[in-house]
Amino acid sequence: MRALHWDGSQLRLRGTHPEPQLRENWACIRVHLAGICSTDLQILKGYMGFTGVPGHEFVGEVVAGGSTLLGKRVVGEINFACGACEWCQQQLGRHCPNRQVMGILDADGSFAEYLSVPLANLHEVPENVPDEAAVFTEPLAAAFEILEQIHPKPDAEVVVLGDGKLGLLCGQVLHMAGARVTVIGKHEKKLATLRQLGIRAVVRTDWRPQLVEIVIEVTGTTDGLDQALSIVRPRGTLVLKSTVAQAHMLSLAPLVINEVTLVGSRCGPFPPALQALAREQLSVTPLIDTIYPLTDGLAAVHHAAQPGVGKVLLRP
Amino acid sequence: MRALHWDGSQLRLRGTHPEPQLRENWACIRVHLAGICSTDLQILKGYMGFTGVPGHEFVGEVVAGGSTLLGKRVVGEINFACGACEWCQQQLGRHCPNRQVMGILDADGSFAEYLSVPLANLHEVPENVPDEAAVFTEPLAAAFEILEQIHPKPDAEVVVLGDGKLGLLCGQVLHMAGARVTVIGKHEKKLATLRQLGIRAVVRTDWRPQLVEIVIEVTGTTDGLDQALSIVRPRGTLVLKSTVAQAHMLSLAPLVINEVTLVGSRCGPFPPALQALAREQLSVTPLIDTIYPLTDGLAAVHHAAQPGVGKVLLRP
Repeated sequence: MRALHWDGSQLRLRGTHPEPQLRENWACIRVHLAGICSTDLQILKGYMGFTGVPGHEFVGEVVAGGSTLLGKRVVGEINFACGACEWCQQQLGRHCPNRQVMGILDADGSFAEYLSVPLANLHEVPENVPDEAAVFTEPLAAAFEILEQIHPKPDAEVVVLGDGKLGLLCGQVLHMAGARVTVIGKHEKKLATLRQLGIRAVVRTDWRPQLVEIVIEVTGTTDGLDQALSIVRPRGTLVLKSTVAQAHMLSLAPLVINEVTLVGSRCGPFPPALQALAREQLSVTPLIDTIYPLTDGLAAVHHAAQPGVGKVLLRP
Repeated sequence: MRALHWDGSQLRLRGTHPEPQLRENWACIRVHLAGICSTDLQILKGYMGFTGVPGHEFVGEVVAGGSTLLGKRVVGEINFACGACEWCQQQLGRHCPNRQVMGILDADGSFAEYLSVPLANLHEVPENVPDEAAVFTEPLAAAFEILEQIHPKPDAEVVVLGDGKLGLLCGQVLHMAGARVTVIGKHEKKLATLRQLGIRAVVRTDWRPQLVEIVIEVTGTTDGLDQALSIVRPRGTLVLKSTVAQAHMLSLAPLVINEVTLVGSRCGPFPPALQALAREQLSVTPLIDTIYPLTDGLAAVHHAAQPGVGKVLLRP
């Protein structure tokens, strides 16, 4: 099959990459669309030391395995848990210490014609959700994770720092939950898509910071946390979404003095994300920049790495 | 009156420092005992740019002002709030943006024969609590703050990193609350005082770290947070007590990946601290290293700055 393959130093389009082997309790999926995420771009700089087929956002169709799901459109959670450990028993396979992670850790991902995923990770896509929306389920679930972890009052004031793909989704999810959201970003065009949904969105240079109770840090930069700490109220909550892998200079004294709660937040639950898409409570397809055929995958990755670009998708 | 005075570059014993002026709704207190805290030592290195009489731990007797408290033994909360702002109205004067802080910010402190404190900040000391225990109320309240912020299950497993004065108090307070506490430190002698209370206390070099749900970081060092992050479980809670003012190299990627909640924690409520002392649920006097007369204050401060020293007190 065709697949993009990262050997640790170079990304190549392979025409004859071996198809995934079908295992018990796994399904083989024909990929309809795959999304390129910032984490993928980091992986292509060496993050996690991954080699193999990258990609962890997809929507596709079950073509083998998983009898009840055969022929259905599905999306899939990215953490392949062992199913036996303490975390898995608490339904927290996302933190299973033995996990593989699709396209990130010891498991091939979705930048391919086919991929293989444990049945336990699959969720059927509601009929009225098109592929172009369903492919956002994984990052949207990461945005919903915030609502699993903190419980903002219905009219809480929230600032989302960052207008990357995840920032725009976080803004929408918190707006949906009733919060009074302001998204701060750099890209007028992206921010305009939020304003059309009734969400306040301000270019950083026009912004007059005020203290707020909840700040979502999703800039993906090393200085995002310092900015976030400077605008969160005493006793406020700061949700940290940016996985900035490298160490950087930081003082947490303001966090202690102001008794701020800092919540690390990563992958989230798929069902509320799919439900919100099915109910059309969110608008994700305007986030799409370009859909490339998989055979133009190298160009797609190059495009996705440009600053300010929306979601770039691959269609095998 | 006699007082220790810090002019920004030198600490001096003054024989004729002006006595505090009595203001409406403030009381004048004759200090029985004052405690030297790590924050005081940082202030004498320039922290907060403070000048004046340092000291924010004391027990004393009201000698003027505050009719109902006149002649009573009292301890006092350190944040002098404006009483009018949003924070004060929420009973959170500890975060009042207009506050003065005793011996730390724009207000003279307790390393003196007399000090002046707003009546609203004073708490009467129960009769059965001796001065040598009551002087610990302020740092003990900072330990109780943890129980205001997080709600450990009665048998939660907790590691306290650090055996400074505050670390020993945090260990005791969490033990009192039912947690299964392990205090990790450097000083066998200090740790032994905890073992006598039935609290597990291990010298760092003998310790085999295991993941735990709750970690209290109270090392006062820049590398404490990295250590703490390495032993907190996914979805666990890390309470940060160390106000390490200087920026240092830090990666919070593990916090995001493991979805750890980091809680900044500072000053706390006096009533539960006084109640625990009155009920003799805690043992604080073994933490005392030496009581110096105020006239030997410079030697006392020098002594308190030595590694591994217990609580050094001043008696005016």
